[in-house]
Amino acid sequence: MTQAQQPAVSRFPVPELKDMPEDIQARILEVQEKSGFIPNVFLTLAHRPDEFRAFFAYHDALMEKPGNLTKAEREMIVVATSSLNQCQYCVIAHGAILRIRAKDPLIADQIATNYRKADITDRQKAMLDFAVLVSQKAQEVGEADFDTLKQHGFSDGDIWDIAGISAFFGMSNRLANVTSMRPNAEFYSLGR
Amino acid sequence: MTQAQQPAVSRFPVPELKDMPEDIQARILEVQEKSGFIPNVFLTLAHRPDEFRAFFAYHDALMEKPGNLTKAEREMIVVATSSLNQCQYCVIAHGAILRIRAKDPLIADQIATNYRKADITDRQKAMLDFAVLVSQKAQEVGEADFDTLKQHGFSDGDIWDIAGISAFFGMSNRLANVTSMRPNAEFYSLGR
Amino acid sequence: MTQAQQPAVSRFPVPELKDMPEDIQARILEVQEKSGFIPNVFLTLAHRPDEFRAFFAYHDALMEKPGNLTKAEREMIVVATSSLNQCQYCVIAHGAILRIRAKDPLIADQIATNYRKADITDRQKAMLDFAVLVSQKAQEVGEADFDTLKQHGFSDGDIWDIAGISAFFGMSNRLANVTSMRPNAEFYSLGR
Amino acid sequence: MTQAQQPAVSRFPVPELKDMPEDIQARILEVQEKSGFIPNVFLTLAHRPDEFRAFFAYHDALMEKPGNLTKAEREMIVVATSSLNQCQYCVIAHGAILRIRAKDPLIADQIATNYRKADITDRQKAMLDFAVLVSQKAQEVGEADFDTLKQHGFSDGDIWDIAGISAFFGMSNRLANVTSMRPNAEFYSLGR
Amino acid sequence: MTQAQQPAVSRFPVPELKDMPEDIQARILEVQEKSGFIPNVFLTLAHRPDEFRAFFAYHDALMEKPGNLTKAEREMIVVATSSLNQCQYCVIAHGAILRIRAKDPLIADQIATNYRKADITDRQKAMLDFAVLVSQKAQEVGEADFDTLKQHGFSDGDIWDIAGISAFFGMSNRLANVTSMRPNAEFYSLGR
Amino acid sequence: MTQAQQPAVSRFPVPELKDMPEDIQARILEVQEKSGFIPNVFLTLAHRPDEFRAFFAYHDALMEKPGNLTKAEREMIVVATSSLNQCQYCVIAHGAILRIRAKDPLIADQIATNYRKADITDRQKAMLDFAVLVSQKAQEVGEADFDTLKQHGFSDGDIWDIAGISAFFGMSNRLANVTSMRPNAEFYSLGR
Repeated sequence: MTQAQQPAVSRFPVPELKDMPEDIQARILEVQEKSGFIPNVFLTLAHRPDEFRAFFAYHDALMEKPGNLTKAEREMIVVATSSLNQCQYCVIAHGAILRIRAKDPLIADQIATNYRKADITDRQKAMLDFAVLVSQKAQEVGEADFDTLKQHGFSDGDIWDIAGISAFFGMSNRLANVTSMRPNAEFYSLGR
Repeated sequence: MTQAQQPAVSRFPVPELKDMPEDIQARILEVQEKSGFIPNVFLTLAHRPDEFRAFFAYHDALMEKPGNLTKAEREMIVVATSSLNQCQYCVIAHGAILRIRAKDPLIADQIATNYRKADITDRQKAMLDFAVLVSQKAQEVGEADFDTLKQHGFSDGDIWDIAGISAFFGMSNRLANVTSMRPNAEFYSLGR
Repeated sequence: MTQAQQPAVSRFPVPELKDMPEDIQARILEVQEKSGFIPNVFLTLAHRPDEFRAFFAYHDALMEKPGNLTKAEREMIVVATSSLNQCQYCVIAHGAILRIRAKDPLIADQIATNYRKADITDRQKAMLDFAVLVSQKAQEVGEADFDTLKQHGFSDGDIWDIAGISAFFGMSNRLANVTSMRPNAEFYSLGR
Repeated sequence: MTQAQQPAVSRFPVPELKDMPEDIQARILEVQEKSGFIPNVFLTLAHRPDEFRAFFAYHDALMEKPGNLTKAEREMIVVATSSLNQCQYCVIAHGAILRIRAKDPLIADQIATNYRKADITDRQKAMLDFAVLVSQKAQEVGEADFDTLKQHGFSDGDIWDIAGISAFFGMSNRLANVTSMRPNAEFYSLGR
Repeated sequence: MTQAQQPAVSRFPVPELKDMPEDIQARILEVQEKSGFIPNVFLTLAHRPDEFRAFFAYHDALMEKPGNLTKAEREMIVVATSSLNQCQYCVIAHGAILRIRAKDPLIADQIATNYRKADITDRQKAMLDFAVLVSQKAQEVGEADFDTLKQHGFSDGDIWDIAGISAFFGMSNRLANVTSMRPNAEFYSLGR
Repeated sequence: MTQAQQPAVSRFPVPELKDMPEDIQARILEVQEKSGFIPNVFLTLAHRPDEFRAFFAYHDALMEKPGNLTKAEREMIVVATSSLNQCQYCVIAHGAILRIRAKDPLIADQIATNYRKADITDRQKAMLDFAVLVSQKAQEVGEADFDTLKQHGFSDGDIWDIAGISAFFGMSNRLANVTSMRPNAEFYSLGR
């Protein structure tokens, strides 16, 4: 398949790497080196450099931040909420990351289809119940929900993290659906 | 992991193979020989022999029947509708079958997350639009929906097939969710 | 009104009785003898003999099976869930059967409009709460729902029965809506 | 069954006829003379004389008003919208009135379960589409909906009538559900 | 802006004051004298004198009635439920009245956007929870809801009031959306 | 009212200005100088400096960016989508900004309650239809939606802007609801 025949990465223009601002090039080359390929979210958002920078700064602030939630748990939140938002890119790309982080080849597909039936702890189910509530009906969140999380050992800081990840990926899901952002073929089999 | 530590196949009792009626044993041995393992839907439903027999007779009548829908297209219907019903077993097991039938390692995950963004034809999208309508709001199906399908070349017989598969797996999705039917580990990686 | 002017039984072809396979003819003649007329579900599904056979085998396995649920209670499940699925055939035909089974001319219309206000026991309300949950949101069914049912005296076997009937008629409702299956005029007044 | 054992007309107090204001007594005796029984909506609302008077004044302004909608068509609107609101009293009582007005024993049950499959004209279906839209999503009503109705021959005055009836019975449905207003046994069989 | 250029009060005809029945004229002049302007709901409904009379009789019976709910609390119910029904006229007009009745310039906007976050008492939140339930899902109202209200000190009479106001304005919201009833400019700033 | 008695800005800790990182202090002092007060979103997010920086970088990239959408139109998107998400802070704060940007004291309340009835152009209604679709059902966005926007003169770049603003404030709405972020009293009357 020639370049021209490959399915589009995004329905919006995708700049050539060489035409991108230097800091964005650098970030992309770094992820490429680490992963072996360039995840399409980088190419899609490079169309809007300022939004690219803010997006990944926000992403890193939530996903790389130290805290009580493990990296795998953060990815669980992404997969569970993105699946309900029917976001192909986020479920497939973060499903791969979840498999790797959790060292579990089954977990991502379980959570993507119905997290209530996944091989996770009760604490993780409570975490996902809250993440899904924030994603679907944040207007109804109240102190009773915080109390439930605290009974499972989550601190106020953890609760902010869960809500922040759910809210940020709710944005990301909408952008991916509007841009028809295509998951890289590599993601489908990573970590299986 | 010993037998006792393995996660349950179903939250209801699962009989030993040797205690099942002969015809059910035969069907299960046949599928085991063909697939190399026993899909858990057979073990779960064996708890109720008469329902087992009717379920698989119905399944075969819809999925093995000759007709214009390819076997891969029938599986697309199963995956798209089961995902909206959040049925872990059906999405994971039939996702595997879809990958094999379509000889495409990406198609199942694409359809499971958002079939509108999948690498399928416009005709297949129309098929899935209808299958999803039957699954979610069958009460609103009307002649305009049949006309759209006919413009894509579907016959009345094909329309019955699409509706039948959507309706049958709507039942199956509910049974799998109530029984917490567990997808076999083998399904996750088949056809990738 | 001549035959030709009568409203269609189904929007799909309906075979002549004499052209049907013998076993299907036999089943239809048996029900006609017992009821005095041929319920249209038999004529509609006769268009697809294999599906006809599987459908009624499944129906009988759930509705004729011995167990703790009375025959009237099984019909209550059909009427409550079919009404939410807006299935004209199932509400009207099974409403008639419910009136007869329960020897109560009011019960079917009460349950069809709002089962929470019907003249039924608390145990029957819990049964219908669960049947409706399976019908509308089976993905959310969990152990708390089983516990509630057990507090009302339902066994695991009863729970399977309730879920099975709800799921089977969810399929039937979709088929009836897609085929525009017409309730026989006789059903409207039976048992009143 | 003694008085004490009869199911309650309303979960709120129901005054004795002799204790009601004279004008309300008069209205009730008039309807009793005409119908042969006192519909429970009169007894339930008599608990609140001012609301009783306003309710029936409004009811009569919409239902007895001359205009292009036939009396049967007005009742169709009541039955279709009340069924979606799961109002037992309104579906059962106005179902009876619809059967009588339309001189058709089947029409009420058809419309109550799925008006799209009822034996009504396309014009009546358009009327019910609009009535249901007003009942379920009035915020989305726009000029395109008015245009559709005008193509079916409805005037602006008719459109107000349809909307008014849908809106008024939306109120009535909510009152009936909150008061657990019980349909009189007589309604179930009237007009069949 | 000349009269002709002003945005329409209603998409239906609005009669001249002098052409209205005398009692309606009188009511309108009375409200104009009190408020300094004629709220558009009076002009919109004057197109239908009988409905006008019943509407305002009903309104007064619920909103002017003595009882435990303060006038401000009644307006809270109107604002919370009308906002969920996306009724521009009711939120803006009754928002103004609420600010005046509660002598609080912030309360109406708080309740219109999310009453759960408003500066109100727990008792008032329980009142609005019930009002919203009646407005959105009255079919699910049951004794548990009454018990909650009673724990907050509401009597059966208060409960009827809350439900009545919610149901009446549910009707009003639908009429306002269908007629595109325009809020008077005066309402936006009243009581701020 | 002493400091201690004032309602909380956020249910999470809010740092003292002097304890914040310098760049955040600077940004807050700048907005305070310009507005005369510190909008509570700055105080709430200052609890998480990295997220604060990314949030406002993203905000500015979308809201301050040159392009065909006017600043008032961008605020319309915020108000329409935040209202459906029931976000008190965003509707009240951005309602104020919208009134100022549009130099129209009525527009914000109109759009917050039902943008379909607001005094805006057809082009603006199409913009809000799309923004709301992205906010509520982004998974269904397709080429037909892009075509409608192009017929109203929107470019691909404008479409990205609309979607970006809708998606970003969808995140913001969820954060505000989880943190119970309180709108400053000043916002309620600004621009009226």
